[in-house]
Amino acid sequence: MTDEVDYITGSTRIFAILGDPIAQVRSPEMVTAEFRARGIDAILIPVHAPVAAFETVLRGLMAMGNVDGLILTIPFKAAVLPFLDHIGPQAQIVGAANAVARLPDGRWSGEIFDGIGCVSGIKAAGHVFAGKRVHLIGAGGAGSAIGIAVAFERPALIRIFDPDVSRAADLCARIASVDPRIVTEVASPDPRAADFILNASPVGMLSDARNPVGTDAFAPTLVVFDAIVKPEETPLLAAARRAGCATVAGRAMMRGQIARIVDFFRDASNPLSEK
Amino acid sequence: MTDEVDYITGSTRIFAILGDPIAQVRSPEMVTAEFRARGIDAILIPVHAPVAAFETVLRGLMAMGNVDGLILTIPFKAAVLPFLDHIGPQAQIVGAANAVARLPDGRWSGEIFDGIGCVSGIKAAGHVFAGKRVHLIGAGGAGSAIGIAVAFERPALIRIFDPDVSRAADLCARIASVDPRIVTEVASPDPRAADFILNASPVGMLSDARNPVGTDAFAPTLVVFDAIVKPEETPLLAAARRAGCATVAGRAMMRGQIARIVDFFRDASNPLSEK
Repeated sequence: MTDEVDYITGSTRIFAILGDPIAQVRSPEMVTAEFRARGIDAILIPVHAPVAAFETVLRGLMAMGNVDGLILTIPFKAAVLPFLDHIGPQAQIVGAANAVARLPDGRWSGEIFDGIGCVSGIKAAGHVFAGKRVHLIGAGGAGSAIGIAVAFERPALIRIFDPDVSRAADLCARIASVDPRIVTEVASPDPRAADFILNASPVGMLSDARNPVGTDAFAPTLVVFDAIVKPEETPLLAAARRAGCATVAGRAMMRGQIARIVDFFRDASNPLSEK
Repeated sequence: MTDEVDYITGSTRIFAILGDPIAQVRSPEMVTAEFRARGIDAILIPVHAPVAAFETVLRGLMAMGNVDGLILTIPFKAAVLPFLDHIGPQAQIVGAANAVARLPDGRWSGEIFDGIGCVSGIKAAGHVFAGKRVHLIGAGGAGSAIGIAVAFERPALIRIFDPDVSRAADLCARIASVDPRIVTEVASPDPRAADFILNASPVGMLSDARNPVGTDAFAPTLVVFDAIVKPEETPLLAAARRAGCATVAGRAMMRGQIARIVDFFRDASNPLSEK
């Protein structure tokens, strides 16, 4: 038995993820590993914030002198906005933030990285959205964040399918607010001519064998992304792989998001390092 | 590079030590190691609570559903009492608590373990206070906690030296409140006939070469304890060792305290395990 562990000391900086429930989150082990890989003496802890106590928990964390940033998960991504001094461009349009950081002057800034993580993961695989046609399945929380992050990459066209047509139309309008030159369309599931298919719906998750676009007649030039993490190869990705398409799995979005959130924490605490 | 660390997940239980300043504390690595040695999936994090924000930070931590206990250090040991539902017998007399735990019904209970750690460390070395004569040097925060914890062991006599005579007299009165059969005396530094010498003063710390009792004419039957952690062998302990006395170093108090605090956390969350 050793008297001490080597991964936390009195000077370790603290980050936290707030959710209700919290036990299922993966950020503590993944974000802490990212800190460690970058040589940052910091740890991300899980915080169970019961909904009724959210403000008390949040104000407590923000008052701690050695807490530099927070991640918000369900159901707090929208609830955090009133406590922020600065809201990033994507968070403003989505109406939610999932990472907040303390600036050197003590103010708090927030942004949403769900969509940024997706775009980052797809770009890391060598693909470019600018000028391209994007077919997006799902306009809920994940789909909205992804659609808006993709809009910031200036594609030519974003087509959106959601079983709730008004939700798809609302996302089209928000995408137009990013840049009115982007053509937006409420679409059927069938992708027709597109350069990217992005699935942000739950169709294909776990033992659901359905392909959310209802066809596997894919041109091999398509790039197909699925936000679903389990299974790693969804029915959509399997069909795309058989058709010779490039595929990007949900885990790339998760990795991309963690890397961009840690960049955000680092840049907030040290604005001179901003790129 | 690995994608995950193995020492924190979404279901890890959280404990915290609150202080101002905080970077110098040793509890995060030591208490976390104690959790790990016992197979408890928990971590103790440092929390810098600026004095003006103490209540906000404390209420935030107490509202978190996965926080089960807190340690308080300077300057919050007395300040925490108004927030507790139950105050342990030693904390009541000392007027301070350094560990608080959530009971299964959500109420919070506190106790002070500074003195309990000392007694636990000395008892672990095989020594017994019951019926014995104790010479205590120092009646400040540490000396008070030690004197009162020793009183709970029912020695025959406690003699107390402090350069501030009124502080020594006040501690004598508080010890008498534990058990009026314990003889108490305000004393000179010289230990005269005693079974234990306990140093709770800073004399002998770091490069201070002084022996706080001013003599090294020790009977070899004496047990000599020094609360100072650095150096590990203080001038007092060195003199005692040369005289053939049994000695107990400050690190035994620190180890004893950590073990008793983790017992307290465990017993609070599961009263059926109380001994």
